[in-house]
Amino acid sequence: MIEHLTIIGVGLIGSSLALALKQQGFVKRVTGCGRTEASLQKGVELGVLDDYSLAVSEAVAGADVVVLAVPLGAMHSTMRQMAAGLDANTVVTDVGSAKASVVEDARATLGEHMTNFVPGHPIAGTERSGVEAGFATLYQDRKTILTPEADTNPQAIDVVTQMWQATGADVETMSVEHHDHVLAATSHLPHMLAFSLVSHLSKMSDQDEIFGYAAGGFRDFTRIAASDPVMWRDICLANGDALLSLIEGYKLELDHVSQAIRDNNPDALYELFRDAKHTREQLRNL
Amino acid sequence: MIEHLTIIGVGLIGSSLALALKQQGFVKRVTGCGRTEASLQKGVELGVLDDYSLAVSEAVAGADVVVLAVPLGAMHSTMRQMAAGLDANTVVTDVGSAKASVVEDARATLGEHMTNFVPGHPIAGTERSGVEAGFATLYQDRKTILTPEADTNPQAIDVVTQMWQATGADVETMSVEHHDHVLAATSHLPHMLAFSLVSHLSKMSDQDEIFGYAAGGFRDFTRIAASDPVMWRDICLANGDALLSLIEGYKLELDHVSQAIRDNNPDALYELFRDAKHTREQLRNL
Repeated sequence: MIEHLTIIGVGLIGSSLALALKQQGFVKRVTGCGRTEASLQKGVELGVLDDYSLAVSEAVAGADVVVLAVPLGAMHSTMRQMAAGLDANTVVTDVGSAKASVVEDARATLGEHMTNFVPGHPIAGTERSGVEAGFATLYQDRKTILTPEADTNPQAIDVVTQMWQATGADVETMSVEHHDHVLAATSHLPHMLAFSLVSHLSKMSDQDEIFGYAAGGFRDFTRIAASDPVMWRDICLANGDALLSLIEGYKLELDHVSQAIRDNNPDALYELFRDAKHTREQLRNL
Repeated sequence: MIEHLTIIGVGLIGSSLALALKQQGFVKRVTGCGRTEASLQKGVELGVLDDYSLAVSEAVAGADVVVLAVPLGAMHSTMRQMAAGLDANTVVTDVGSAKASVVEDARATLGEHMTNFVPGHPIAGTERSGVEAGFATLYQDRKTILTPEADTNPQAIDVVTQMWQATGADVETMSVEHHDHVLAATSHLPHMLAFSLVSHLSKMSDQDEIFGYAAGGFRDFTRIAASDPVMWRDICLANGDALLSLIEGYKLELDHVSQAIRDNNPDALYELFRDAKHTREQLRNL
């Protein structure tokens, strides 16, 4: 149970967290903080927030838990503004999609509060964004990964674990490096592929007509290309090395397909598609 | 209204067509033909077929309309077996995902029946296959493209158009070349990207763990990688040139992303993602 929770950056992720915790009676008061007052007011109207402040240091004052739900590129300055206002015992966590850059920002800004900082990442989302996009069941049966450091306070880890469990999430712990590698493969690379496909097709001269013939598969495939561009810009910059190496490997995979087509090699194509189908079908059961 | 329809290859596409036409009272008798008797028997049990034959020339005898729903690689031999059994007035159509190769096969095998052959392609499907996967609403509000030749009998085009309209499809006509170009972009390329992604990730040593963290976006993105490998092998071989050139263009798009990451260029990344999001959102309204 959390008496006072402050969420900095009240978009899809932050508002869904607030709604889930309120629905479970796991939080008494939720304070929001952000740059756009209209959006925070909307949060109060929607029952996501109890109150709000536009000043980070004011918003975190007296909070038991602070959740940073701003884009990765805004973490450093937000943490710096926050540090002065934090109580000694306030637990801080974040929801960033890459963790190495966040830990670096925290070490550079949080000072003695660093041991109460628990880096986190709920593996959930939709292509929609903003406070109106939030819903209480977003985290139900989804994973949340925590990547505590060796010196992270175990009680702070417990507080953050219990908070995410209250939303219905399955909480796991792993190293920062492992998290960033796994997420580059399962989320960051697929998003780059979808953005690139839409971008490629939109450059073809007959674009409108081309999109008119897009069937269900194409629509599913490119749905994630409607995701927030600021968030994805920041993820690319924060997890660039892992992503670059995956893109290079992926291009080799495409070369393998192209070569089989050029060689007119039915067996190579069949095996590639059969194995991928088999792997994808196993994923259904996970 | 069709008195006697023969469907050669009773999988997802063929059985959905039969179910839709029966539901609309647009067909009296549906004869199935295929290589696997158990599957044809299943078709009779499910009410998809009225009867069946394992011999192509027998199955098409007396049919008013014959629909070829076999993989592209089986078109040539199926058409050759069929040619002898066709009545002079039987209208023939197909559902192949690439059209140049089918027209070539038809010109090589159908002889004087060529003018009654209307190449067609319903832009619909799921990643499932087989007669059990069929459902009557598959074509509802979807496009079916016909690519008749200059010498195609207009009455044959009318028969095929009315058949697809009876399933709820929106029927359009275009040239073979244009069809193959548009489909390479909106369907064949995305499928290659999805197969390649699954293949790439499955080669990473920690594959099982990686797939365990795959969220909704990844699942949607790779759903189409569970599609029929025989069908996709044949599409690659039949529409290889268009596909090769799209894959090359797509790799340049990925290079553009990689370069922006390497240059640590937030503006280039933001613009790319913003434009793709904008394009993808327009697609929602189509």
